[in-house]
Amino acid sequence: MVSDQTELRVRYSETDQGGVVYHANYLAYFEVGRTELLRSLGVPYAEFEKRGTRLMVVESHVEYRAPARYDDVLLVRTSVAELRKVRMRLSTEIRRKSDGVLLAEGWLWLASIGRDDKPGPLPAEIARVLGSAN
Amino acid sequence: MVSDQTELRVRYSETDQGGVVYHANYLAYFEVGRTELLRSLGVPYAEFEKRGTRLMVVESHVEYRAPARYDDVLLVRTSVAELRKVRMRLSTEIRRKSDGVLLAEGWLWLASIGRDDKPGPLPAEIARVLGSAN
Amino acid sequence: MVSDQTELRVRYSETDQGGVVYHANYLAYFEVGRTELLRSLGVPYAEFEKRGTRLMVVESHVEYRAPARYDDVLLVRTSVAELRKVRMRLSTEIRRKSDGVLLAEGWLWLASIGRDDKPGPLPAEIARVLGSAN
Amino acid sequence: MVSDQTELRVRYSETDQGGVVYHANYLAYFEVGRTELLRSLGVPYAEFEKRGTRLMVVESHVEYRAPARYDDVLLVRTSVAELRKVRMRLSTEIRRKSDGVLLAEGWLWLASIGRDDKPGPLPAEIARVLGSAN
Repeated sequence: MVSDQTELRVRYSETDQGGVVYHANYLAYFEVGRTELLRSLGVPYAEFEKRGTRLMVVESHVEYRAPARYDDVLLVRTSVAELRKVRMRLSTEIRRKSDGVLLAEGWLWLASIGRDDKPGPLPAEIARVLGSAN
Repeated sequence: MVSDQTELRVRYSETDQGGVVYHANYLAYFEVGRTELLRSLGVPYAEFEKRGTRLMVVESHVEYRAPARYDDVLLVRTSVAELRKVRMRLSTEIRRKSDGVLLAEGWLWLASIGRDDKPGPLPAEIARVLGSAN
Repeated sequence: MVSDQTELRVRYSETDQGGVVYHANYLAYFEVGRTELLRSLGVPYAEFEKRGTRLMVVESHVEYRAPARYDDVLLVRTSVAELRKVRMRLSTEIRRKSDGVLLAEGWLWLASIGRDDKPGPLPAEIARVLGSAN
Repeated sequence: MVSDQTELRVRYSETDQGGVVYHANYLAYFEVGRTELLRSLGVPYAEFEKRGTRLMVVESHVEYRAPARYDDVLLVRTSVAELRKVRMRLSTEIRRKSDGVLLAEGWLWLASIGRDDKPGPLPAEIARVLGSAN
């Protein structure tokens, strides 16, 4: 299975008055994970957008298991869960580095959108590297 | 069914370089919806936090149907979908006001957390007003 | 002097673990203020971007006087402080509606950027309405 | 002069529909810079908050020189510019790593706030490490 792990540190700006990371920010962490997954496979996402293809999030699901806190170092593990012609599902798991505790897990469906703002097949290059070991 | 509708206008800060609202921001819009739902029922959420009870998001699910754009006015409709002793599920639907198009829909499970950071029953006052017409 | 006042309510997502609005969010509130100032003058900013002109923030200055908190209603007052050929300075003042306390004040220099990503004169229509009563 | 440099990579969530980093996000980058400055000096900020002292931003000034873009790696250099009994001024400079271009520079005044929410002298430990080489 194609997957990748990256690290990030929780910023003060990402917390809320409950003293923990605001739940919507986990989706931004998921994004860091998939940016790094694509980079690790040699197909940096920034290049795709320059050539006119965007990956749009069409569905998201997150289960929040335990709160992440300011200055925690998080491990974000991203895997390809399903790969279809025009969309793919990525799973993400976020753990606290210091003790390995699972903080959040979830998945996203991403669709490929072309210059015309219409859905189309995933770029061949992405489909190839993501599917190779699936 | 207990529900409420509120309006908001998309800010420039909420867009991304794809030219549309960044997907994580819909969760912040959902939050505006539930804040206004509770206010409309006479139990403003800010009061609960002052008395030591927080409603924590434990699961979120969002389907992104069509992009919201800068300066769009959105209608956020929030309903109580399930009400249990220690948690509740709220559904939210977001439409563009100008043409009624559905932009996003989803739901959240919220759990009640006390001063001791432990889950407990939903505050009686909230359970009463939310359950009344369900 | 050309000016306008608008209202907004602090969201939970805008707070931080200090229990107050995270300071960077005041710049987003300033943006709401200038969007509404331009709308009130009949030159909605969204229209300018569609026609290829952007107003870019080139300098910002904010003094944080007292903390805004979750669910506070804020009054955002925006005025044209200086109007030049290629840039303008807008001043903003944010007060809590309930007691009129000044929470933040500051100003921004905005430059006009054309389709070529180069600075140019402010759009004539904006210069006219902003300068009229200055 | 006491200073420190740290790196970060621009996230998609930090861009806006102008195709560049939304200006308010530079203040969040400044925060990453001062968190790492304090950590590098052996006085991690998270520890101070746990003991009841917060550093509150009371004034900010930013000049935006050139746009940062998605996936750019940024160098954030933070220095102590002025150190007084109850407040300090930190300067920050942000450059793109690939070509060294200056993207933004600015400064913040930070005040020390105690458990009683009142201003007080900077914690002795912070004053010592920040002042040592000034």
